[in-house]
Amino acid sequence: MTFAAQILTLYPEMFPGSLGQSLAGKALERGNWTCETIQMRDFALDKHKNVDSPPSGGGAGMVLKCDVLGRGVDHAIERQPNAPILAMTPRGKPITQDRIREIAAGSGVTLLCGRFEGFDERLFEARPQIEQVSLADIVLSGGETAAIAILDACIRLLPGVMGAASSGTEESFEDGLLEYPQYTRPQEWEGRTIPEVLRSGDHAKVDAWRKLQSETDTRLRRPDLWERYNSVRDQSASGARRKEKGPDQ
Amino acid sequence: MTFAAQILTLYPEMFPGSLGQSLAGKALERGNWTCETIQMRDFALDKHKNVDSPPSGGGAGMVLKCDVLGRGVDHAIERQPNAPILAMTPRGKPITQDRIREIAAGSGVTLLCGRFEGFDERLFEARPQIEQVSLADIVLSGGETAAIAILDACIRLLPGVMGAASSGTEESFEDGLLEYPQYTRPQEWEGRTIPEVLRSGDHAKVDAWRKLQSETDTRLRRPDLWERYNSVRDQSASGARRKEKGPDQ
Repeated sequence: MTFAAQILTLYPEMFPGSLGQSLAGKALERGNWTCETIQMRDFALDKHKNVDSPPSGGGAGMVLKCDVLGRGVDHAIERQPNAPILAMTPRGKPITQDRIREIAAGSGVTLLCGRFEGFDERLFEARPQIEQVSLADIVLSGGETAAIAILDACIRLLPGVMGAASSGTEESFEDGLLEYPQYTRPQEWEGRTIPEVLRSGDHAKVDAWRKLQSETDTRLRRPDLWERYNSVRDQSASGARRKEKGPDQ
Repeated sequence: MTFAAQILTLYPEMFPGSLGQSLAGKALERGNWTCETIQMRDFALDKHKNVDSPPSGGGAGMVLKCDVLGRGVDHAIERQPNAPILAMTPRGKPITQDRIREIAAGSGVTLLCGRFEGFDERLFEARPQIEQVSLADIVLSGGETAAIAILDACIRLLPGVMGAASSGTEESFEDGLLEYPQYTRPQEWEGRTIPEVLRSGDHAKVDAWRKLQSETDTRLRRPDLWERYNSVRDQSASGARRKEKGPDQ
């Protein structure tokens, strides 16, 4: 099955960009995914092909017009009725690895790339199926570089793209924790050696050490993830306790 | 002044990628920034030019060797001693707009792109000046697409890159809040009209409405940002109170 990415943008020439190389580029050549761009300007309603206009109420920059984008989105929906539609905007919900996994398991995705001061809000009111998604708490020149990162994350999960079936499951975020630190040869470098336990050959010990490292690093580096991880763990523990005790207690 | 980006990567052909187009592309042509890649493989120590090796302790994938990367990083430091060095890794600290702003105000940046199962941890122990940075809580096929997003965010802030000097300050995250919703012509679309206040011509009212929208949307969509925003506000308020009362009270 081919994963169909369609991208609504004012800069179709930015795609596939870096995704034409390396892992994603080979997957594109093999047909694991397709990359179709839709030029937003084609849906303009006037002879000057205007897509934007100054913000109501004043302020710098230009806002993408809802009448033009509405037509573009409707065209994208007609082409791929079942694909989720993600609008790249810093006002959106932060993208997560869980959502990436869901998207990658589907038939494709439609990505709507913002520019300038963003979209006329009525687009989202009138087309509530559009998910507003934020890549990171930084401001990009446009949604295109965010779309490329999100596509990259999806493509590596498509069947047949990564070599070993096991990579992709033991990663940062996959179990709600950061990945453990990694080491490889040489055994000694600049006076620093690989932790003894990793050379013990004792798989249970190695697993326990890695789990502890993951937990410690997550707690120290990402208190936000650590809190979420523990609240999920508490919930499933209390669920298990309820089950044990039975419904009457 | 030209902002010098240097990128340590196994895939130099991925750069400038999408940054060769649009705003960043025009800035590259004008000389607002330069994009130099350094091939990591050039620092390999054996005739097979190996850069990676299996993880100590077992597991899928390959780990980037610290002896090879250490030499690459040292070369990058020699070329640009004052540039911050950011390693793209999901184990890193989430990048923020504040950090982007600091980097863009400097002379350049060195970006180290991970691949496979990441870096041998000893690289970061031995070169503590390397900042481990995460773009988002998603797993990419490599650090390259993260580096492109981070460069995009820096480039738009360089002097002479954005048209109006004012855009760039009234944005999401710049004051710790999401940006307010935007509207533009037409006045009515699919029965939906632009909020009345934005057409009032009363700048104070418009500002107050936008501030309220920013706060409401941040509270509802991003409780994490909202909490941080309020704790900063509380601190500066209590600082101001202390000042008023004087040091003796």
